This record gives sequence, structure tokens and C-alpha cells, in this order.
Amino acid sequence: CRFLPLACPAVSMDTFWLLFGAILVFFMQAGFAFLEVGCVQSKNQKNILVKNVFDASIGAIAWYITGYGIAFGHDAYAEDGTTNGFIGTTGYFLAGDHFRSDDATDEQLGYEWANWLFQWAFAATSATIVSGAVMERISFGCYLIYAVTLIGFIYPIVVHMTWNSGGWMSAFRQDHLLSRCGVVDFAGSGVVHMTGGVAALVGAVMVGPRFGRFGPNGEVRALPQLSWVYQAIGTLFLWFGWYGFNGVSSLYIVGKGLVAAKTMINSTLSGAIGGLSSTLVAQVLDGFIDPAAANNGILSGFVAITAGSGVAQPEGAILIGFIAGIIYQATSKLLLKLRIDDVVNAAPVHLFCGMWGMFAVGLLAEPNNYGRVYYEDRSGICCGAFYGCGGSQLGAQIVFILVNLAWTGVTSALMFTVAKYTVGLRVSKEIEELGMDTSKHGGMADYVHHVGESSLDNSRTS
Amino acid sequence: CRFLPLACPAVSMDTFWLLFGAILVFFMQAGFAFLEVGCVQSKNQKNILVKNVFDASIGAIAWYITGYGIAFGHDAYAEDGTTNGFIGTTGYFLAGDHFRSDDATDEQLGYEWANWLFQWAFAATSATIVSGAVMERISFGCYLIYAVTLIGFIYPIVVHMTWNSGGWMSAFRQDHLLSRCGVVDFAGSGVVHMTGGVAALVGAVMVGPRFGRFGPNGEVRALPQLSWVYQAIGTLFLWFGWYGFNGVSSLYIVGKGLVAAKTMINSTLSGAIGGLSSTLVAQVLDGFIDPAAANNGILSGFVAITAGSGVAQPEGAILIGFIAGIIYQATSKLLLKLRIDDVVNAAPVHLFCGMWGMFAVGLLAEPNNYGRVYYEDRSGICCGAFYGCGGSQLGAQIVFILVNLAWTGVTSALMFTVAKYTVGLRVSKEIEELGMDTSKHGGMADYVHHVGESSLDNSRTS
Amino acid sequence: CRFLPLACPAVSMDTFWLLFGAILVFFMQAGFAFLEVGCVQSKNQKNILVKNVFDASIGAIAWYITGYGIAFGHDAYAEDGTTNGFIGTTGYFLAGDHFRSDDATDEQLGYEWANWLFQWAFAATSATIVSGAVMERISFGCYLIYAVTLIGFIYPIVVHMTWNSGGWMSAFRQDHLLSRCGVVDFAGSGVVHMTGGVAALVGAVMVGPRFGRFGPNGEVRALPQLSWVYQAIGTLFLWFGWYGFNGVSSLYIVGKGLVAAKTMINSTLSGAIGGLSSTLVAQVLDGFIDPAAANNGILSGFVAITAGSGVAQPEGAILIGFIAGIIYQATSKLLLKLRIDDVVNAAPVHLFCGMWGMFAVGLLAEPNNYGRVYYEDRSGICCGAFYGCGGSQLGAQIVFILVNLAWTGVTSALMFTVAKYTVGLRVSKEIEELGMDTSKHGGMADYVHHVGESSLDNSRTS
Repeated sequence: CRFLPLACPAVSMDTFWLLFGAILVFFMQAGFAFLEVGCVQSKNQKNILVKNVFDASIGAIAWYITGYGIAFGHDAYAEDGTTNGFIGTTGYFLAGDHFRSDDATDEQLGYEWANWLFQWAFAATSATIVSGAVMERISFGCYLIYAVTLIGFIYPIVVHMTWNSGGWMSAFRQDHLLSRCGVVDFAGSGVVHMTGGVAALVGAVMVGPRFGRFGPNGEVRALPQLSWVYQAIGTLFLWFGWYGFNGVSSLYIVGKGLVAAKTMINSTLSGAIGGLSSTLVAQVLDGFIDPAAANNGILSGFVAITAGSGVAQPEGAILIGFIAGIIYQATSKLLLKLRIDDVVNAAPVHLFCGMWGMFAVGLLAEPNNYGRVYYEDRSGICCGAFYGCGGSQLGAQIVFILVNLAWTGVTSALMFTVAKYTVGLRVSKEIEELGMDTSKHGGMADYVHHVGESSLDNSRTS
Repeated sequence: CRFLPLACPAVSMDTFWLLFGAILVFFMQAGFAFLEVGCVQSKNQKNILVKNVFDASIGAIAWYITGYGIAFGHDAYAEDGTTNGFIGTTGYFLAGDHFRSDDATDEQLGYEWANWLFQWAFAATSATIVSGAVMERISFGCYLIYAVTLIGFIYPIVVHMTWNSGGWMSAFRQDHLLSRCGVVDFAGSGVVHMTGGVAALVGAVMVGPRFGRFGPNGEVRALPQLSWVYQAIGTLFLWFGWYGFNGVSSLYIVGKGLVAAKTMINSTLSGAIGGLSSTLVAQVLDGFIDPAAANNGILSGFVAITAGSGVAQPEGAILIGFIAGIIYQATSKLLLKLRIDDVVNAAPVHLFCGMWGMFAVGLLAEPNNYGRVYYEDRSGICCGAFYGCGGSQLGAQIVFILVNLAWTGVTSALMFTVAKYTVGLRVSKEIEELGMDTSKHGGMADYVHHVGESSLDNSRTS
Repeated sequence: CRFLPLACPAVSMDTFWLLFGAILVFFMQAGFAFLEVGCVQSKNQKNILVKNVFDASIGAIAWYITGYGIAFGHDAYAEDGTTNGFIGTTGYFLAGDHFRSDDATDEQLGYEWANWLFQWAFAATSATIVSGAVMERISFGCYLIYAVTLIGFIYPIVVHMTWNSGGWMSAFRQDHLLSRCGVVDFAGSGVVHMTGGVAALVGAVMVGPRFGRFGPNGEVRALPQLSWVYQAIGTLFLWFGWYGFNGVSSLYIVGKGLVAAKTMINSTLSGAIGGLSSTLVAQVLDGFIDPAAANNGILSGFVAITAGSGVAQPEGAILIGFIAGIIYQATSKLLLKLRIDDVVNAAPVHLFCGMWGMFAVGLLAEPNNYGRVYYEDRSGICCGAFYGCGGSQLGAQIVFILVNLAWTGVTSALMFTVAKYTVGLRVSKEIEELGMDTSKHGGMADYVHHVGESSLDNSRTS
């Protein structure tokens, strides 16, 4: 054996665990990209692809400058135990005690660096959710504004309030807990998906529907989508990455093997049943087996279980996913009734199923699981109502839902309003009809599928 | 360092290892989906994509209800050491001692939960293998019947007989070993691939060939396939996932690093040489370098080494893979001679190379490797014939092959017969010609590649 | 807990770490395949797909026979400490002390086997880089020659010189260090990317441009590319795999958590900013937001940081990536001016940004990081010039750059010359115009996207 006098294998393992999770969650960017480009019209595919690689890139820079610091930095912790509860003041630019302290061992620092990467991958997701809702008509300038603002400010504030030990509604606070329990959002149904989903819905409403999406009397017109293959494979990629998103949110593997494994099983069952219930509803209502219903139902099941994946039991996870598939179908049809054009159904999946997931924790958190993930001494107070704990946890969850709707709703509306009066919310009607790729990205991406033709000028370099 | 008074880091690591493997094996669903949709005619792509996401989803529910319990549950273990040897009676619905015992530590339970997930990913694979063989004409009802039956009953029985310590032909039995050794199937050439492959072949024969696949005199007519890109990328995805399938079948990483690493190398070498030998044979016979020969040859090499990946040496792995590539070519051409239409060549890859892999263990299991993976005290009896152990192991392998052919063959035939007289085996000729997508899934998926056209009504929501 | 009297959990973890890395780096083959087939003309897609699956397959066999032994075998180590410094003489065919010694524990051997796999995945990459540069006109025979030669000989020599503890310019030597420090190439900007990039450039020059790529007066003509989707998704796959390529190059996780995590963060930041700076330059010069600029800029940032990912600080990584994006744009345009047709811009990405990355280490290696990764007692001598260490390290880096240019340049030129006078460098003009797929691979891959047509004869089996 190598001698390891100074190292602590347990911390090394936990660092490995976080890095493993970060890489899986990053892979979700490939899933979102595939899914979104699969739903786009052919004439806009280069446009959405650039945004997808930019989401991760801009996300890294924004997370480096402000995101991590706001979310996970210490906020002023007075001697009487008070914090500001909203925003961190350290950890910007990968500097400060978290990352470069002389008092910590290399291994402890390594764990913090790994956590930065893990949390960056989550942050990038929040912007990607918006991309899918507003694509095909939003201006590139507006895209840049919302990506930077969401990853660098709006999302980190939600994280700080909910996941930072100083956050005012965090379950990790030592005292002054919201509704005696603080908010339980194990992996981010609320913090990540609702936040992205609210911004997506606000964006879709403010930017307006794509030209031709709705007829003069509100009738829905189908616009062609590039590829059902991409959409389905993207869904499987997201399923794959979600094992990192939810499972690795145990944050440790040493001593947390049961939490991690149960979380992944709960996620699998909820996603699986969500796809089946959504498909069943679509079969009944629309009369055919819809691959999109299966795909988005699976994603809805995953979004909904994300908050409770660490605290629910498998039977609870199945209930959560089953209902999520139905909620997806109902809210998807509702948006169309309201003439809201959310291209990939981001709000039904991420916002409405995220809300349901947050709410469901208040019903279905099992006490032993709660004790393993949070604090054993609160497991008799803060478990779900169906397990006999009453409404304390449910109260905290409802507060979170209202606060997130308000915070993200208002700041997103402000953000898109600023965009409207500066760079413009959407492209002109001419550009929209012609397609973004021709007008903004050097030419159509379409390959003409006939032997001998090569007239389209769409090479990488010109 | 964090204090870990109650935790056992070794178990945590092994749990991590299994979860890592489960996630990799799950990713094979994306590989199968890509490969299968790449081989389908454009008019049936939505149909196969739905089945691919359903395989994993239905698989999770079926595994939860009956699959795991049948496969890994304890069967009645009398005081004289007898078991029923076929079917488990505990562990259904993620309940029972395996998962919720008070006597086990959280870490020990975590390992069991992780094993559930790892084994689910294997089970889902067995159904996916069938999907590729019978696509483009099988009815959706028939699909649902075979997916549920295979994952929930036929496959788990094979697992129990072979991998459960109470299974009648298991190498993990304490006594009454079949042919003094029990069956060696390290990661499932027989248990997973043969089982899926037998069901696929029975299905392809009973459902009959696609309309137009064979001319009146048996001449083979090529039907167009959607994308060679998808087929090749799907192959690389499967290669990637196979590191989990085979490598993580060491089941532990602590103290099993050599087994895990050697397994992955054996798999790499066998898959690599399988692709090369298959391509060479195709070049000689057909006169051109066939990407499908390369892809399916690689998969054949992986299927064949799966059983012996933990017990062979690299030189043995190369021999196994080389022959697998040839077997693939021979059996693929044989099926066409017999006018059997196995769209993705599932039987040549999974059934015939799976059989070869099981047989090869009886020749090429190296004694030291055998000792590391199974029992050292049997390594002089149960190694391969080429290493001087005689025919005991080979005998056990041949019994397995015959039993699996009989069990899976008969139950699959029954299952498809039930489907035939209830929901119907295949769609009508009209639907087959029109394509499944138009008739069953809301419209053609094809995107018409001309600027300005958007007449096809194929949106996700209507 | 399981009893583990003989096992060393730390070595098991490090083995797991290497296997994890190997699998991630292997996945880059899927990324390269997607990216390359996305850039090809439709008529040559089967051709490049075969090469992509062959790169990994041939790579495995070549690495087994000679590659690993040349690269990592011991070279004669005389009692006075001298080695030949260029080539290993043990470890061929997975035999010898590294793999089968009786003196080592199973766990120690397991680590060596895992390292074989990890290093194979790197080796396969070097050939794949070439494939993209010379595609659409190179002969299949020439492909086979360069793949075998590069993976089995040219690349392993570079590895031995730089990464073997006996290598003449290695930083891991005990004494007689080149420029007092030896060459620092943490994960292979020089060893892998420059080597692949030099061979790619030599190949692109010697094989000549594709027919029609340049007009009579040198004007650049865009040739259509199959899919922008594939190119972008391939980029995200490579980003994903690069966490294994760079992060796992810490080679250990126990006690190396900080190195691993910081490496991954540095890589993320450099890739992210590289994509942004490249896109910005393209926007200024070409007037539109070019998805290819974003994709290749990201890859350029990753290539450049690869050498210094373990020794730079985040602020240094951002500088390295920012400049890499600019270098990519400049050299890409330079090649076109010189009428060199490098289809995927392999040389700008891998060669020129690899050179920049090697050079940058001499400026930006931070002393504490250097100490963690290499030798603490040299951290005051061998850190980067910007951190006050003077030019020793920079000198070593420059020697490496010149040596690699000379070694890989000359041997590649020889290799392609041999191919020219034996199998031929490129296909005939007729075959090039018709496309490789029709002439060499059994028919066009294109699927005609019109309902009812199925005249193209492109099935998998015939």
C-alpha cells in the first residue's frame, strides 16, 4: 500500500463522489441540447446549438465571478447567530477561505473545489431550461442577458436562501427554522427546476408565441420539429445525468450509501411511472401513443421526485411520478389554451412538476429517511403529513413555492423588460420567417439530401 | 477528517462502484435506442423510440413488482441445505430483509439497494434486445406483453437458476454443484444476452419477416435504414456502457481491483478484434468494407467475452472475440437463408455469440483468475479445458446452454402465442406499408428538407 | 464490514479512479465520431464512421502488441542510473512484471492493469485526431498504415520520452533533468494533442485538399457538411470526456482530491472562455455568430489547458483559454490562406493550441500546485516565469515543442511517403467525386426523405 499519513481516504472518496456527480450533471447539457434541437424547426438549429454550448460556457464564467459566492459564500454571521439570509459575501472568483485557506488540509480544500464544480453544473441547467421555452424567436442579445442574470444572480439567491446553512428558509440552519423545519429540497425540484421554469414561463409569455403557432381563433397549429430521434435520445441522456443530479446530492458517499442508492431508485421509479402515466393520459385524450408524452412524462417524473428523492420511500416515489405525468399533460394543454407558446414544454415539466415535487415532500417525507439526510432529532416533527408529522414541513414547502414564484417571477420580468428596451426581446418577423440560421449564423444548416447537390453554402469556415 | 465511527468506508466504496455500474449499464439503453432507430425505416422511427424509453420504464416497474424478488430473493432453504433452485420468494416491492432489515447497518442496506439498481439495468437490457429484432411490424400490444413477461418473469428465473446462491446450477452454491462446478457466467453472455437473443429469434420467426424483405424466391431485398450515423454512435455507446456491464460485475471494487481492470481490458480486446474479424470476413465475402459488419462485430465480441471477461486472460479474450466476429457473419447470413428477418441481427449478436461465450468459458477460464472471482479451492477443477481442468466446467456450460434454449424458447413461444390470440402479433399489412408513425403515433416523423415547407403535421402537441 | 485483511482500500480507490477515467476518455471516441461525421459530406459518412470505430479497435490491438511496452515499459536502467530514455523493453502483450509479477499484491497489479486501459484510451485519441483532418479523400490503406504506426510506434515514443520515469526529458526522472525541471505536460497538450495534430497537418498537406475546396485563385469554397447537430453534440461529448482526460490524470484520487478537482475546474474555465473568445473573434471578422467557432473554441481551450490543468490557477486557466480561442481563429484562417484543407480544423485545435498550452506552462505553473503534482523541492525552480521561477521550466517546454515537431513531423512524413508508394495516399478523383460510401462501403448512406420511396439499396445486409 502507498503510505498516506496525511490523507484522509474518506474525504478523498467524497471528493471523487462529487466530481462523479458534476460530470454526470454536466452531461445533461448534451441531453438538453439534443432534446431542444430535436424540437426546433430546421431553420433555427444552429441558433439553439450555439445557445446550448454557451449555457455551459457563460455559466462557468458567471459562476466563477458571482454565482458561487452569492450562493455558497458565508453571509455575515453575527455573534447572536443572525445572518442576512439572502446572499453570500465570500467565495467569489474561487478565492477566499473556502478554496485557499491555510488551515484546511489539501483534501478538505479538494472537497470544496469539487463542490464548486458540482454546483456549477446545476447552475448551468437553470439557464438551459429557459432556452427551450423561448427558442425560435428570442433575440441573441436577450439570450445573453437572461443567461448571465439567471446564473450569476437570480438562481444563486434562491440557492442561498434554501441550501446555505445561513439561508433564511434553509433546513440546514441551526435555529430560527422556517415553520420549525426549514425547506426540504434534496436535489432541486424547487431551487433548480422551478427557478428555471418560472423564468421560462415569464420569457415565453413576454416574448410571445412563434409566428404561426396559433390561428386567429386560438387554434393550435403544429410547427414541424427537426427530429424525434434527438428528442428521445436527449431524454435518455437526461435520465442518465439525473443519477448525478439526484443521487450525488447526498453530497457524501462514505456513510451515505443508503441515501445515495435509495435516491437513485426513487428517481428511476418516479421517472418510469411518469412516462407511463403521461402516455396513458395522452392515449386517452389524443387517441395515439405519443413519443413526446412518454419523453416529457419521464422528465416530469424526474423533476417531481428531485426534491423528495432522498426522503421518500419507493412507494411514495411511484405516487409522485404518477401524478407528475398527469400534471404535465394538464398544464401542457392549459398553456396552449392560454396561447402561450412554450416550445419544449419547459414550464409544464420544470415549473409545474417542480412545484408538485416541493409540495409532495410535505406529504411523503418518511421519518427515517428524513433523519438520515437531515437531522434525526427533527424527524418526528418534519416528516410528511402522510407519515404523521402534521403540517410543519408542508408549511415550509408552501412558503418556498410562493417565495420562488415571487422572487423569480418578478426578477425575470424585470430582466426581460430591461432586454425589451435595450437589445430587444425578439427578432423581427422577417428574420423569424427566414430562420435564425440564415440571418444570424452564416446560413441554413440543412443538408440537401440529393446526390450531387452541394449548393448550400454552410461550411464551417468561409 | 470527518468522523466515521459507524460507517465502513469499504462498503461505501463498493456501493459507489455498483451505482457507477448501474448508471453505465443504463446508458446502454441510449445505445440500443440509437442503434435500433438507425436501422429502422424512417416511417417507423417514433414507434421504436417509444419502445426504447418504455423498455427502461416498464422494466423499472416490472423489476420492482416481481423481477428482483424472483431473481435475487431467498428461496426456501431447508435445514438440509436444499432450495427450490428456481425462484425467490422475498424481495418483492423493494420490501423485506434485503432492503429494510433492522439487523443490517445503513451501509449494508445501501449496498443491497445499489444492487437492485444495477440488476434492474441488466434486466431492462433483455427486453431491449428483442425490440430490435421484431421492429417495424410487431403490434404495440404484443410489445407490452413481451416486455412485461420477459423482465418480470422469464429473465428473473434464468438469473435465479444461475446467479442466486440458491440456484440449482449456480457456481455460488455451497454444495450439490452442477457438474462439480456450477455455471460460470461472469456478467451475462448467457443469462442476459442469450435470454434476450432467444426471445428475439422466437419473436422474429413467429411474427414473420417485414413485407418486402424477401422476394418470392427468397432473394433478400434491402430495406432502407434511417441512419448509419445512429447505428455507429449507438455501437460506441454500447461499448462505453459495457465497461459497467462487465467490469462492475466484479460486484466489489475493494480487494477486486485486479478483477475489475482485467475484465475491462479483456472486454476491450475482444470487442476490438471482433469488429476487425467481422469486417474482414465481410470484405472477403461481400467485397466491401461494411460499417455494419464493424459495428455488429464489435458487439459480438463484447457479447461473447461477457461470460468469461473475469476469468479469461487477454490472449483468451482475443481468441474469443476473433471467433465471435466470424460467428456473427455466419449466423447473420444463415438467418437470411432461412428467410428470418431479424432487423438488427439481434440473434447473431446476442444469441449465437452469447452461446459461444458460454461455451468458451469451459475452454479458456484461467485457474488463477477463476480463483479470484469464484473459489480458490475449486480452481484446479473448474478452470477451462485448455488450462488442464478437463471437462467439468465445460459440461456445466453446455447444460446451461441447453436449459436456456429450452426455458426461454418455450416460454417465449408461449408468450407470443398468447399475444397472437389476444392482441395480435403484428399490425395489418396496410399499417405496415403506411408505417407505424402515421397510423399509431400521430404522424410521420420525417422533416421535409426544403426551405419554406412546413406542411407536415408532426408537432409534439396538437 | 467485510473483512479485508490483505486488501488496501486506498489502492482499490485509485484503481477505480483510473478505470473511471479510462471510460470517460473512451467516450471521447463517440465525441470525435459525432464531430467528424457532422463535418463530412453526406456521401462519405460511412467511410468516416468505420474509421472511428476502427480507431478504438485497432488502437486496442496496437497498444496490446507494442504501444504500452514502448511507452511505459522499463528501459535498461544501468547501475549508474542511465536509461536509453526513448523506448521501453518490457510490458508488451500485457506480459511481464507490470502485469503478472508474483511479488506484487493483486491490488497493486490491478492498478497497473487499470493504467493500461487508461493509457490505451489516450493512445486511441491520437489517431482519431488525424482522421478528421484527412477525411473525404484519403485511401483506406493509408488510413490503416497511419493508425497502426501512430498508435503502435510514433505516439508511444513521445510518451516514453516525456512521461516515463526513464524518459530523457521527463519531469519524473530522478536526476539529469532537462533544463533542471523536465517537461511538464500534466495530461497531454503536447504528448497527445500536438502529436496527433502534427500528424494531422502533415497528412493534410501531403494528401492535398479535397477536390473543389479551393478555386483556381485560392478562393475558399464551402463544401456542405452533414450536420451541425452532430458537430455540437460531439463537442459536448468531448467536454464530458475531458474530465477524465485531464482530471483523472492526477492518476490517484486518495490524497490527490485537490489536484483532481482543481484540474477539472481549470479545464472547465479554459474551455468555456475559449469558446467565447473564439466566437467573439469570428463575430468581428466574419460578421455572424458561428456555431463552429464556439465548438472549436471550446475544444481549443481544453487542448491548451490540458498541459497545465494540474499546475495552473483558475485565473491562469482563463488566460490560457482566452488566448487559445484567438489562436484557433488565426491558425484556422492561416491554413486556408495556405490552401491546406484540414476538414475539421484538427491542426488549429490540437497542434497550435497544444503548442500554446505547452508554452503556457512555462509561464503559469503556480508553485504550490507544482509541488502537489510534481516535487515540492523543485517548486521554487520549476514554476512558471510569471510566478518568479525564471525560465528553466519554459526552456524545457520549448525543447519539447521542437522535439515533438521534429519527431512526429519526420516520422509522419515518412509514414505517409511509404503509404504513397505502396497503397496510395488518396482515392482517385472519380471515387472522390462519387463519394467513398458508394464506391467502397456498399452504397450511399443517405435516406431519401420522401414518403414511399425506398429505392436506395443501403441495408445492413445484402
